[in-house]
Amino acid sequence: MKDVAARAGVGLKTVSRVVNEEPGVTPETSARVQAAIDALGFRRNDSARLLRTRRTASVGLVLEDVADPFYAALSRAVEDVARAHGALLFTGSSAEDPRREQELVLAFCARRVDGLVVVPAGDDHRYLLPEIAAGVATVFVDRPAGRLDADVVLTDNAGGTRLGVEHLIAHGHRRIGFIGDQPGIHTAGERLRGYRAAMEAAGLPVRPEWYAMGPTTPERVRAALDAMLSGPEPVTALLAGNNRVTVTAVRVLWNRPDPVALVGFDDFELADVLDPPVTVVAQDAPGLGRAAAQQLFRRLDGIAPEEPSRVELPVRLIARGSGEIPPPR
Amino acid sequence: MKDVAARAGVGLKTVSRVVNEEPGVTPETSARVQAAIDALGFRRNDSARLLRTRRTASVGLVLEDVADPFYAALSRAVEDVARAHGALLFTGSSAEDPRREQELVLAFCARRVDGLVVVPAGDDHRYLLPEIAAGVATVFVDRPAGRLDADVVLTDNAGGTRLGVEHLIAHGHRRIGFIGDQPGIHTAGERLRGYRAAMEAAGLPVRPEWYAMGPTTPERVRAALDAMLSGPEPVTALLAGNNRVTVTAVRVLWNRPDPVALVGFDDFELADVLDPPVTVVAQDAPGLGRAAAQQLFRRLDGIAPEEPSRVELPVRLIARGSGEIPPPR
Repeated sequence: MKDVAARAGVGLKTVSRVVNEEPGVTPETSARVQAAIDALGFRRNDSARLLRTRRTASVGLVLEDVADPFYAALSRAVEDVARAHGALLFTGSSAEDPRREQELVLAFCARRVDGLVVVPAGDDHRYLLPEIAAGVATVFVDRPAGRLDADVVLTDNAGGTRLGVEHLIAHGHRRIGFIGDQPGIHTAGERLRGYRAAMEAAGLPVRPEWYAMGPTTPERVRAALDAMLSGPEPVTALLAGNNRVTVTAVRVLWNRPDPVALVGFDDFELADVLDPPVTVVAQDAPGLGRAAAQQLFRRLDGIAPEEPSRVELPVRLIARGSGEIPPPR
Repeated sequence: MKDVAARAGVGLKTVSRVVNEEPGVTPETSARVQAAIDALGFRRNDSARLLRTRRTASVGLVLEDVADPFYAALSRAVEDVARAHGALLFTGSSAEDPRREQELVLAFCARRVDGLVVVPAGDDHRYLLPEIAAGVATVFVDRPAGRLDADVVLTDNAGGTRLGVEHLIAHGHRRIGFIGDQPGIHTAGERLRGYRAAMEAAGLPVRPEWYAMGPTTPERVRAALDAMLSGPEPVTALLAGNNRVTVTAVRVLWNRPDPVALVGFDDFELADVLDPPVTVVAQDAPGLGRAAAQQLFRRLDGIAPEEPSRVELPVRLIARGSGEIPPPR
């Protein structure tokens, strides 16, 4: 900056004003400073400033997988809120591995992010206690933290599957299957709970072969669904536990001669142009990201109550056709 | 660190070994240091180290929109390569706004990222010259840099549309439409060029009302397609310029009584279960991200030739049904 000031024939304060786009500099002086900057290849360096001030204007976002459309939409919403607050975003995918989640979170903290938005993969987040004590704001989203009391923004998962199952029951189904993600994942457990609750409330049994929890790979989902459809009491309808399951279920079901009703958890692109179009329980992925990021900045700005908050966003059933297929007579 | 060393009754070097997971510390000592760390709330801070060393082990990624499945897949591939090189990722969406692109790039540079992977929105990247001179490795992906000679990884866009149009011609079509993205976007221009080249090579005319370039919003695509289908010489087949266009084209075409052939640029999830399934020219989104990130680290490691490289990845035509619909007799 001294070199720039000398070359432009102005004081350091003037260079600072031009760089930070502050008023009080004539256009001519500004142009002279800009020319000196260009000639000298002056580059802003935030590192020293970041060491002096407490805030780094950066936020870390840990997702399960940014390539999953649900998390991609959530990610974009977090980015937009961060941008509105002048903050940059570090992002990383945990790939559902608790160690990778911790590694990413601590790496972000070592870069002194102001805050974190975390879709947790693990179930023990006490490793974050020193960071939180040091002032790193942390909001969990999609799933709550484990063994740690922190802000969280969730979808009403149990209510969502309950709504979906009730819809299928209302259309005459009695033998309804559920395929969910790995049982250790909070959302998967909650959705299973909602499925069971709806069946029980309607006085319907739940046979062990009617539900299957596990990885959402096409092979696993296909095998689980084949088993549900080929037993002595085959299901006549399926609630798919997330968009990965729905996509495979569509591939399997649309190739069968007998129609099977389907309600998917999570909306997805082109659900409306499939034949039949897919009925879904839609959660609000951008809404989750937005609410989490807004809570993060409220906390950073010191305007959130000290007590951690828990927000649950509602779901919406969108009837399109596949969930209204009646059972075979 | 001094406090931790004093509390644990060990030297600074030992604390450093434990924190950095280096060998040469007994499990007992390590546990004592860990207990002191926990008690004191010691947190690693990379900022000072980053001021001393040249490398920050971070990379900035600027995309058009991380919520677009094409860029989400590209993003994940860049993250995986960065992770393999021990680097963290800043990400940001330019929303096709050159000023926002520049703002993000310079903000990443001010945080002293080692390198950048950029899907450019603008057409003049000379603002990067001081950064590149200062050692920031920069690789452009999906579209080349403007007025700057830099590494770039592209898809064979013109070859892709040419392949798609040739496929439609081989199935008997003579009046073929093309709907592309905004003409200022490199990929959109290249794809239009390939469309024209294929029509010309087959001795077919291209009527002005058969192609339309502009924003890929559903309203614009719908209007453009309606116009192509309702003129005195309506098209019998459409090449959709990217996945956003294809998604809307499917909605319009699948609701018409007369079948219209469709080839989409970019593959997309569930293209195979639509009725008819959608024929596409598939580009390799993860391959683009991987190749760009690998080139970035080659450059950072000083093992890339000084001359900027230009890589063009091939496309693949996947015939599924919609592109094989014959013209009406």
